[in-house]
Parts: sequence; C-alpha cells; structure tokens
Amino acid sequence: MTDSPFDEPPRLPAGFRCASIHCGIKPSAEDLALFASDIPAVAAGVFTRSLVPGAPVVVGRELIRAGRLQAVVVNSGVSNVGTGADGILRARRMGIAAAQALGLAPELVLMSSTGLIGAPLPVERIESAMPELVAELQHDPVRGAEGIMTTDTHPKAVSIAVGSGVLTVVAKGSGMIEPNMATMLCYVLTDVALKQSELDAVLRRVVDDTLNMVSVDTDTSTSDTCVAIANGRSGPVSEAVFEGALRVALTRMAEMLARDGEGASRLVRVTVRRAADRGDARLIAKSLVNSPLIKTMVYGGDPNVGRILMAVGKCVDCRVDPDRLVAAIGGVTVFLGGGRTDFDESMVRSLLGLDPVDLDVDLGEGEGEARAWGCDLTPGYIAENAAYYSS
Amino acid sequence: MTDSPFDEPPRLPAGFRCASIHCGIKPSAEDLALFASDIPAVAAGVFTRSLVPGAPVVVGRELIRAGRLQAVVVNSGVSNVGTGADGILRARRMGIAAAQALGLAPELVLMSSTGLIGAPLPVERIESAMPELVAELQHDPVRGAEGIMTTDTHPKAVSIAVGSGVLTVVAKGSGMIEPNMATMLCYVLTDVALKQSELDAVLRRVVDDTLNMVSVDTDTSTSDTCVAIANGRSGPVSEAVFEGALRVALTRMAEMLARDGEGASRLVRVTVRRAADRGDARLIAKSLVNSPLIKTMVYGGDPNVGRILMAVGKCVDCRVDPDRLVAAIGGVTVFLGGGRTDFDESMVRSLLGLDPVDLDVDLGEGEGEARAWGCDLTPGYIAENAAYYSS
Repeated sequence: MTDSPFDEPPRLPAGFRCASIHCGIKPSAEDLALFASDIPAVAAGVFTRSLVPGAPVVVGRELIRAGRLQAVVVNSGVSNVGTGADGILRARRMGIAAAQALGLAPELVLMSSTGLIGAPLPVERIESAMPELVAELQHDPVRGAEGIMTTDTHPKAVSIAVGSGVLTVVAKGSGMIEPNMATMLCYVLTDVALKQSELDAVLRRVVDDTLNMVSVDTDTSTSDTCVAIANGRSGPVSEAVFEGALRVALTRMAEMLARDGEGASRLVRVTVRRAADRGDARLIAKSLVNSPLIKTMVYGGDPNVGRILMAVGKCVDCRVDPDRLVAAIGGVTVFLGGGRTDFDESMVRSLLGLDPVDLDVDLGEGEGEARAWGCDLTPGYIAENAAYYSS
Repeated sequence: MTDSPFDEPPRLPAGFRCASIHCGIKPSAEDLALFASDIPAVAAGVFTRSLVPGAPVVVGRELIRAGRLQAVVVNSGVSNVGTGADGILRARRMGIAAAQALGLAPELVLMSSTGLIGAPLPVERIESAMPELVAELQHDPVRGAEGIMTTDTHPKAVSIAVGSGVLTVVAKGSGMIEPNMATMLCYVLTDVALKQSELDAVLRRVVDDTLNMVSVDTDTSTSDTCVAIANGRSGPVSEAVFEGALRVALTRMAEMLARDGEGASRLVRVTVRRAADRGDARLIAKSLVNSPLIKTMVYGGDPNVGRILMAVGKCVDCRVDPDRLVAAIGGVTVFLGGGRTDFDESMVRSLLGLDPVDLDVDLGEGEGEARAWGCDLTPGYIAENAAYYSS
C-alpha cells in the first residue's frame, strides 16, 4: 500500500540491533533472541496482572523500576512460570549471561521467557549460546521477531516514523491471549528522546486501548510483558507526537496478533459506540470478541445475528436498552429498534467472510467508545491446544 | 447403580402430567411441550440476568410474582428474543392458548421459548396445535423433556423422593450456557406442600450453587428460566428436607447439562477449596471450567498442567499465593509449593480421559468452597455453531 504509514520492510531505530538463534530449548526453530541499544536508554514496562506471574515478570518488575535499560534477552519454548525460587535464580542468570556477553551492567538487561508453563528453564543452554547470539546482532527487526515466536505463524514487527526518528514494535502472541496489562511479549524500540515519565505514561495509556483490547481465547498469560526502550539517538519529540505514533503502531500490532490467533482464519474488529461510559464500552466490546458463539458465527459465515444481542445482554452490569440498540455487521444494520431488520442475508454472509469482519454496536446511552480485536474460533484452535504439551 | 437416590426411570409427582408434540416450528422433531398440575400450585422462578431477555422471560417475571402456577407451556425452535413489543404479544397469546385448552385462568400458565434468537414466534401454529397437545398429556417426564430439546443429544429428566412425595426436574440446555440466575430452561415439579416463600428461598439458594455454576461456553442465554411448582398433593415437608432433595436433584441435572454441552465428550468438575471466601472460590472454579486452554487440554488428554496455574492466576481480584496453591487432576497432585510435582504423566493422561475429569484446587487461604461444572472443547462445538442458523 502506498499510503501506509509503516516502513516496508520494518527497520530498527538508530543504535539498535537484534539477533535470533537456535540454542536447543526447542527441537529446531529459533528459540533465543536479543534486542540491544548501543547506549543506555530510558525504559518503561507493563506486565501481566496474573496472580501466578512467571519468574521473568517478577524480576522484570524489579528491573524496570530504575527506568533504564539497554537490552532485552528473550527465549521461547519454556516460560519459566510456576518454577518457584529456582525459577527466579534462572531468570537472573539469563540476564547476567546476556549482560556479560554485551559488556553491560546486569541491571540494564531485562529477560523474558515464553512457552510451556511449569518446566524448568534450561539456562545452561542459554548461557553457552550467548557469545554466538551477540555475534549475530544485526539491523533487521524481523530476525529478532523470529526468535520469540511460539505458535505464531509469522514473525511480527512494524516500524513507523516518529519525529526525526523511528518507532519499531516487535511482538509475539497467538494463544493464551487476553492481555491484562500487555500482550504476551511486545518490545517497543525507538531512537527518539523522551523523559522516562513521559514514556511510561504514554505506554500505559496506549497499551490500555490497544494490546489490552486483544483477545484470542480469554486466557490471560502468565508472561505478558510490554517494554518500551527509547535511546534518544534521533533527538527529542513531544509526548503528543510520540503517543500518536505509538497508537498507530500498537493498533496495527493488536490487529496482527488477533488475526494470527491460534487457528484463526480472520480478524474480528468490534467497535462499541455511545455506551453509558468507557467502562461499559470496553466490557461489551470484549464480550463480543470473546463469545464462542460470535466466533463460530464468523468462522461459519452464518448470519445468526441474534448472538450479537446475546453477547451484549450478558454484560449484566452495563446500561443497555434493547430498544435503543443498533447493531451492524460489515456496515449492514441487522438490529434496530428492538427487532431484527429485514437485512439481505446473502450480503451479510459475504461480509462475514471478509477479513477483517467489522461488528458495530451503538447503544444510544452516552459517550463511551471502545474497540476490541479478536478472531474466529476454528477447529485449528482445538487441534493446536489439545496436544500443545505433547507436541 | 443400586445405591442411586434417583428413580429409574424418572416419574412425575402426583397430580402432574406432561406432553410433547411436533407443531411445525422445527422441520420434524418435537417442538411443543406442556407440564400441568391438576390443581393450582405454589410456584417460584428465577430468570436470566441478560439485559436483552426474551419476551417469555419478561412476561414470566410478571406472572411469577403472584407465586401461583398450574402449567407451563414451552416451545423450541424459536426463542422469541429480540422481537420487541410484538414478541410480548405473541408470548401472551401462547400462554392464553394453553390456558384455554386446559380450562385454566391465563395467569396460572407460564410460557417459555428456546431456539433461534431474533425470529418471530409462529404463534398461530402453537395455537392450532394446542388441543392435540392437551390430548397427549401423560405421566412420563421424559416425554416432556423431549419437546424442549434444542441441540441437546438426549432428553433430561431426573426424579427423587422427598418427604412422602416426589421431586422431578426436567431441563434442556447444551450451548449458550453460562446461566446467570438459572440454566436455559429447567422445571422443578413436586407434589410436596411448601409455603411459597420457602419454595422461593430454597430455589434461589440451590440454583446459585448448582445451575448457576454450569458453563459450557461462557455465553449467557437470553432465555434462562428455572421455575419450581409444588402442588402439595403428597403433604407437607420441612424446608430443610426439600432443600436437601433439590440440591441432590439439581446437582445431578447440572452434571447432565454440562456433560451434554455442545460437542462435549466429557464432564469437567472443578472443586475449589480453602479460597479466601466463597466469592473467590466461585470465580476461580468458573475460570477453570471456562478456560479454552483447560477445555482443550481435557479434550486432548494432554497433561499440560501449567494451564491450571494460568486459569487461577487470571482471576486478578482474588487472593492467591502460588506457594500455597495445591492442584490435582483426578486426585493426583500436579502442583505443590510453587512448583510442578514429579507426577506420573501417563497416569494423568489416563485420568484426563475419564468421565468426569476432576480438577481440584486448594488455595490455603481461607474457608471458601465452590464447585463448577463444564465440559471439554471439541471440534464438534465449532461444527455445531458455525452453521446453527443455516442448519
């Protein structure tokens, strides 16, 4: 697309490099990645609200408090979750190994792990592989994205101009996705200069409207992490300009994550307007993207539009009047004034086959608006998750 | 089983009869049912909390206020939901037709509808079929259960002795099941004598622990209705004795509903103990039965036990300490003291193949207990719901 705001192919901001190798945690695919700036950078992060967070999340929360980072090391295959005090030690060893190989202080290196829950992290393999990983550092963000994939079908990286610099987002995530602070793993790298307090505030606001509104399967990960690192190489930018760019980039990333949901064949984008308030709008939008009956309706291209009513109605703490509710599929109004419209079924069937499928709900109650992203539910989701551990 | 408390086959209490016929709403199967007492009875009911309730729920709430009923007429195929003011009129006409055919006052007849949302109720067919329906009245509750089925694979009726009488529960429900007051449609018929206030209080308490703890797919129905009718024919019984019998009967019915969840191959029974309070226990039990990753783990017999941790951890408003959490599958402890135990994987694989699959979580926090019932998630659920409207 010539009018896209995104760089094709994506590129890393000035001073950043990344790498990805196979160190032996997974049978064959890349399973270890590194993202590094050549100078220390301001940093902010948001993590899963899960009550059983992974060891890297526990250590990461402690590291991010200083507001400064220079590198992130990530493995896939094993998540280092549910591993107790030994898991914390292994997470720290992973960070220290990367810091030593890069010649940095350990407190400047954040670590993330993603994959199977409950298995010990084979940190010795990570330690031995570190010199090779550092030797691979280069300038293509897609290479870094490859190393952090689990069930993702493709690497996920986008970059966009911001001020006189670049903003790049690299993420992974496909199942166990209903982020509650951030999605599985997401790294925001930029060369603009921002105060740490600005970076932190913008990251929280934008993540709340983008990554936190993605759901593949209602299952909140124990490893959710979104970290932003700004090394200042391209000079200062206003908070507003940075927020605009981050919003565009993380919206695109939210759509990429939802569309690549485990087994998904297409993106479902739900927009709720004129809810009583923002909270109601968010709850109802999430209810629609999470409803298995909406998700199978989209998968089957089946215009069983009453399910939209059902998914709104189950939000029992929201303000809803069925007589004021207007619902549309791909722009075609299917419910109005308390009843189903006389819509063209074959048209709606076709619209349900497009990617994305747009579901719009207008509640006529107030000013609340929200958008959520999800995907259809297909036999592929079940096949993938009925034998994840064994495969 | 010789030690079962249930009557095999189930029977109706004294003075009750039921019937089921095909009136032409569905292509061929039974689609109209009637449950009637020969004398007026005290009655209580709980209905869906959906904000877009069906017309029969709106009318039913009004009728149940008097605390007296003598009959319930039910159609399947079309739910009369999302049909506005015209839907209310059609619901009333359905009740009046049954009352006339039975020679009763219209306020003694409750109506229910279940099936497709958003389509007009073909009430003329119901009216014409009413004499035939009344002529079919007989004493087998299973016949009544047949007329209210939608995607259920078998009719659901249980009966049990209570005092010197009988308590019979007839229900339907297979998809769009996360009841929030009662499950899809459930009728409790008994010949014991109870005050209306006792019947109402017992029904609410027991439904909250049984039907309200069933979930097939997190999707709350717009038609959920559970009505209890006690005609007093077998004489008085204490509230405690009645509550005991109703608890046993509705627990069995909860298990029947969950096991017959759309596409399900087996029942999943989650028990949470020693939560901080009952609210936490209920939330965590529901989180486990609702998690697609737990449900696919059970379907695949895949001992990916870390998913139990994930599903507990996502209840972010509960009190959980991973170090105190103990989790078991089929009685085998898989998590303990912050880490995975060295359990026998092939044993756990076999246990995941049993019906029911028991998942137990002990939080070590307080006195809160809850049980929830669900089922596995299989390709059958998707096949059934990707073309429900069209099929």
